[in-house]
Amino acid sequence: MDATRKSEIAKQYLAAVSDGDVATIRAMYATDAILEDPVGSDLREGIEAICEFYEQGAQMNVSAELTGAPRCAGNTVAFPFKVKVGEMTIEVIDVFEFNTDGKIQSMKAYWGPDNTK
Amino acid sequence: MDATRKSEIAKQYLAAVSDGDVATIRAMYATDAILEDPVGSDLREGIEAICEFYEQGAQMNVSAELTGAPRCAGNTVAFPFKVKVGEMTIEVIDVFEFNTDGKIQSMKAYWGPDNTK
Repeated sequence: MDATRKSEIAKQYLAAVSDGDVATIRAMYATDAILEDPVGSDLREGIEAICEFYEQGAQMNVSAELTGAPRCAGNTVAFPFKVKVGEMTIEVIDVFEFNTDGKIQSMKAYWGPDNTK
Repeated sequence: MDATRKSEIAKQYLAAVSDGDVATIRAMYATDAILEDPVGSDLREGIEAICEFYEQGAQMNVSAELTGAPRCAGNTVAFPFKVKVGEMTIEVIDVFEFNTDGKIQSMKAYWGPDNTK
């Protein structure tokens, strides 16, 4: 998968998060994917646990937008963005690792208390 | 190690890269650290292989600066920056994982051809 396609997926992902479009997000992940958001918290393993996480987000008023260029390297893309959840804004960096089918095999979200306001 | 300290290390690291100060960088890494720059390329394992990499950089005219907030999560910090190498500017995201002594145990640099200009 080339860098252009990986960058597109990052952008489509943020649009789907903003829209609460869990069906689109589901289709982006491998069925045995692992999500860690934020890094250091309990892993969510498998597509059902992952979709449950996004379903919770879809209940809230969320908007997400890139704050810099996606960085594509090897089978990964890392991208900086901000996400507004109600009155709170969080600055995040996500890293996706893709499998050979172009699905997200692992997602790690880097953010902490210092990144919220 | 708290988030403030991890963010400071990210900033001190970029200053040391700009200064070609390999001694300072050496002191930041664990002796058995692993560096992957860019992600997908051959690993550099151990402090000597890592310092050799930075020594090469120190031969060039390099300046690096943050382009967004460091994101501290678990035992990691992820931070977006740009690095100028001669006439070329590269947008990068680095992820450091720290060991319990506060040394960098693993460094991954996310960037690709689309991030250079």
